[in-house]
Amino acid sequence: MDASVKSKLREIVGAANYSDAEEDRIVYAYDGVPMIENAPEAILFPETTEQIAEIVTLANDADFAVTPRGAGTGLSGGSIPSKNAVVLATNTWNKILEIDAENMTATVQTGVVTAQLMNEVEKIGLFYPPDPGSMNVCTIGGNVAENAGGLRGLKYGVTKNYVMGLEMVTATGETLRMGGKNVKDVAGYNLKEFAIGSEGTFGVFTEILLKLVPKPQKIITMTASFDKLVDAGKAVADIIAAHVIPCTMEFLDKTTIQSVEDYAKVGLPTGAEAMLLVEVDGFGSAVEDDAEKAMAALKKNGASEVIRARDAAEADRIKTARRSAFSALARQKPTTILEDATVPRSALPEMIEACQAAARKHDLFFGNFGHAGDGNLHPTCLIDERNADEVERAHKAFDEIYDKAIALGGTITGEHGVGLAKKKFLEQVVGPVGVKTMQAIKRAIDPNDVLNPGKMFSLAPRCESPLPRTQAGVEAFEERFPAN
Amino acid sequence: MDASVKSKLREIVGAANYSDAEEDRIVYAYDGVPMIENAPEAILFPETTEQIAEIVTLANDADFAVTPRGAGTGLSGGSIPSKNAVVLATNTWNKILEIDAENMTATVQTGVVTAQLMNEVEKIGLFYPPDPGSMNVCTIGGNVAENAGGLRGLKYGVTKNYVMGLEMVTATGETLRMGGKNVKDVAGYNLKEFAIGSEGTFGVFTEILLKLVPKPQKIITMTASFDKLVDAGKAVADIIAAHVIPCTMEFLDKTTIQSVEDYAKVGLPTGAEAMLLVEVDGFGSAVEDDAEKAMAALKKNGASEVIRARDAAEADRIKTARRSAFSALARQKPTTILEDATVPRSALPEMIEACQAAARKHDLFFGNFGHAGDGNLHPTCLIDERNADEVERAHKAFDEIYDKAIALGGTITGEHGVGLAKKKFLEQVVGPVGVKTMQAIKRAIDPNDVLNPGKMFSLAPRCESPLPRTQAGVEAFEERFPAN
Repeated sequence: MDASVKSKLREIVGAANYSDAEEDRIVYAYDGVPMIENAPEAILFPETTEQIAEIVTLANDADFAVTPRGAGTGLSGGSIPSKNAVVLATNTWNKILEIDAENMTATVQTGVVTAQLMNEVEKIGLFYPPDPGSMNVCTIGGNVAENAGGLRGLKYGVTKNYVMGLEMVTATGETLRMGGKNVKDVAGYNLKEFAIGSEGTFGVFTEILLKLVPKPQKIITMTASFDKLVDAGKAVADIIAAHVIPCTMEFLDKTTIQSVEDYAKVGLPTGAEAMLLVEVDGFGSAVEDDAEKAMAALKKNGASEVIRARDAAEADRIKTARRSAFSALARQKPTTILEDATVPRSALPEMIEACQAAARKHDLFFGNFGHAGDGNLHPTCLIDERNADEVERAHKAFDEIYDKAIALGGTITGEHGVGLAKKKFLEQVVGPVGVKTMQAIKRAIDPNDVLNPGKMFSLAPRCESPLPRTQAGVEAFEERFPAN
Repeated sequence: MDASVKSKLREIVGAANYSDAEEDRIVYAYDGVPMIENAPEAILFPETTEQIAEIVTLANDADFAVTPRGAGTGLSGGSIPSKNAVVLATNTWNKILEIDAENMTATVQTGVVTAQLMNEVEKIGLFYPPDPGSMNVCTIGGNVAENAGGLRGLKYGVTKNYVMGLEMVTATGETLRMGGKNVKDVAGYNLKEFAIGSEGTFGVFTEILLKLVPKPQKIITMTASFDKLVDAGKAVADIIAAHVIPCTMEFLDKTTIQSVEDYAKVGLPTGAEAMLLVEVDGFGSAVEDDAEKAMAALKKNGASEVIRARDAAEADRIKTARRSAFSALARQKPTTILEDATVPRSALPEMIEACQAAARKHDLFFGNFGHAGDGNLHPTCLIDERNADEVERAHKAFDEIYDKAIALGGTITGEHGVGLAKKKFLEQVVGPVGVKTMQAIKRAIDPNDVLNPGKMFSLAPRCESPLPRTQAGVEAFEERFPAN
C-alpha cells in the first residue's frame, strides 16, 4: 500500500487510532482459525460513522480492501484480513446506547461484548438469548456479521432472530439504516436480513437494535451419561418427540468429556461414551413438566446416570465446563481445527458415526461435541500443523465429513460462517446457481469489491484464497509452539 | 403481446392451462387493493417447475413480464399484473408433500392454503402459527412472497420465522434451492431470507419447507371494553410490562366493533370506544398465571368489562368475528382502503389518535383495528371511489397517517407489503440509500426486469406506476356497484 494512502488513513482516524507497526500487524493477521493468516497493511480504530465512510470511500478510490473486525474470535476466518487490506477494529465502540423496557429492545454500538449486554438486560428482568461459546469476549457486531448461534439456539433461535435494526456504512461509503422498533416491517426487500451473516462483505455495522424477551423464571439443568453414542442420539429425538423444546441440549463425546474434566474438574462422567447436557426453562409448572418428560426420555434410552443440578451454582459449573470444550481440547495438541457440520436433527446419530469413522480411517485425534438439539456438531481435530502429512489427513477427513453432512441434507456451517475456511465447500451446498446469485448481488452492492473481498466466495480475478501464511505469521507460530 | 409469443406460452403449459379470454383477464386484473387494476395478457396454470422455467426464459427473450399469483388476497397490489405481463397462477399446486414429525417440518407446494396446512399439522399435535386474516383462502406461497403476519405475530413471529427452505425459479429461469431442515445454517448469503417478502420480484416459489412447533396445550381468551381509547393503549403496554407475551392482542375501535357486531352478531360491546381481544397460550400453570396478570392489567387501566371466554367454542366465535373486521367494514361503502401503519408498541396510543384526527380533518368514515401487541394497525377508510373528491381526501388522510407513523419510528407496512399501493412511501421509510440498494440488487438478479416489475419500486424507464385502471376493470366495477 502506497505511503500516501497510509498517511491519508492516519489523517482520517488520527495518529492515536492508526497503526502499521509490525507487532500489531501480526496480532491482527489471524482469528480463531488455524493455518490461515494474512497481515493487514494497517489497523484503524475509527471513532465515528463518518470516519468509516471516509475510509471506505478512500478504499474505492485507492483500490485497497477493508476487513471489519470485532473481537477476532471467529472460527471461519471471516476477520482474517483480505489481501491488501486495512483492518477496521470496532471493539472500542462498546457503549450500550439504550435499553427500552417498554418496547423490549436494546440499542448497542457494534463493539459491545455479548455477555456485557446479557448481564445488563438481566438486571431489569429481560433476556438476550443468543449465547455463542465466546460470549465473554465476542462482540455483537461480530455476532451479527456471522449470524452467531450458541447453546440456546433450539428454543430461542440465533442472532438473526434478535436483530430488529441495523445501521451500517455501505461499500460505497453511504450510511444505510435498516429496520427499527417495529415488531413487523415489510417495507421493501429484507436488506437487514440479508446483512445478517454477510461476513463483513455488505457493510460495516455501526449500531445495532436488538430484540429482548422476558427472562425465564425457572431453569432446570440435567446431565445424562451414556455407554453408547447412538443412545444419546435417540434420547435427543425422544425428547423432541415428547414436544419438549429444551433451551439447551448439548452433546459431548468421550474425548471431549475427558478433556473438559481434566481442564475444569467438575466431576464429569469420564468413563461414559457420551454425555448430554439438557436444560429446560420457562415459566410456571411447565418447566417441571418438561424436566420430567426429558428425564423420562433420557432414562428410557439407556442413560446410565441422570443427574439434576441441585442449584444454579452447580448448573453454572457444568455449563461453564461445556463452554470450555474448545479450550480444553485445544490443550491436547498445538493446532485445533474446530468444525461446524450441521444436519437435520434426525440425522444426528449417523453424522456422529461418520465423524468417528473419518477419524479412525485417517488415524486422527478427534473430539466431538455440539448442539444436539440443532443437529449442529463441532467435530474437532487436534493436530500439529508442522506435520504436513497429518494436516493432509485432517483435510481429507473433513472433506469426507462434509460430503456426508451434505448427503444427509445438512450444511457446511451451522453458526461459524463460510469465511475462508469453508469456501471450497460452498458450491457443494448451495449449488452453482446459489453461488452465482450471491456473486451477482455482491457485485451490485460492492462494485469495486472493497468490503472483505474473498470471503465466502471470490469474484475473479481478485482475492483468490486460501491466503498464504505470511512469514511473520510463521515466526509468531514458531515462537508460540517451539519445535520439540 | 405478439400472437406468436402467446402460442408459445400455450404450448409450454398446454391449452387446458392457458387462457387469454376476456372474462379471465378481468378476474385476474386485481387483488385485495381497490382502485388499481391491470389485465394480464394471459393467465397460465403451470404444472411443473420446468414449465415455469421455460415461461421465465421466454419472458427474457420476448420481453414480457411475469406476475406470480397465489389466491390474490394481497392488500398492497403485489399480484396485480405488471404492464405487458402474464399471470402465473400457482393456487392449483396445493399438495402437502411431507410432514416430518421428527424434525418438526412440513414441505408444501406453493399453492397450499394456509389453514389447510394448519389443520393437517394440528392433527398430530404440531402447530403452524402464522395466521393472516385471509388464512382460509390465501396460499403459503403468497404468505412467503409478502412475509405475511397475522394475529399471533407478537409471540410467534411472522411467516419469515417459519420458512426453513425454499425452492424457486429465478428471473433467469434457473432453479434455486435455499435452506433445508437444518435448525442453523449460515452457508453464504441469506438468500432465503432475502426471498421472503420479495413480492414476486426475485423468483417464482415452487416448494416451501416450513418449521412447525408443538401445539400449545392450553389457550385462554379474554375480551375487555374501554370507554377511552387511550386506556386500551395503556393496558397493552402494562400487559407487556408484566412480561406477559400474549399470542394475540387485538384492538378494535368503536366503528369496527359496531360493524363487526352488525355482521357477525356475537355480542360485542357496541357501546364501547375500544375493545381488546387478548389470548394467552402455552403449557402448564404458566397460562393461568399469564391470564391473571393480563386481566389485572386490563382492569387496572379502566376496562369497563373484562370477560374470559368460557370455552373454545366461545373463543372461536370471538376470534372469527375479529377476523371478519375487513369484510364487516367493507359492507359500509363500495370501496374499502385497508391500510397497514405500524409503529413501535409504545407509540400505539399516539398513532391511534393520529388516525382519528386525519379522519376528522378530511371528513372521512374510518374504522380502525389491528394487532396492538405488534403496534400494527389497520386504519380502514370507507369511500365510494366514483366520488373523486372523497378519493382525494382519503389519499391526503393516508399521507398524513404515514407521515406520522414514520415520525414515530414506525413503518409504512407491517405485513401487507409495498406492492403498488405503498410505492410512493417507500423512500420515505427506507431512505434513498435503501431504495438505491434495493434497485441495484434487483438489477443484478433480474437484469431484464421480467419478474413482477414495478412492484415496491420502479427500475426506470419501464413499468411506471400507478397502473391505470383498465376499461374492462371499470366496467366490472360498475357491474358490481351500479350507480345509485
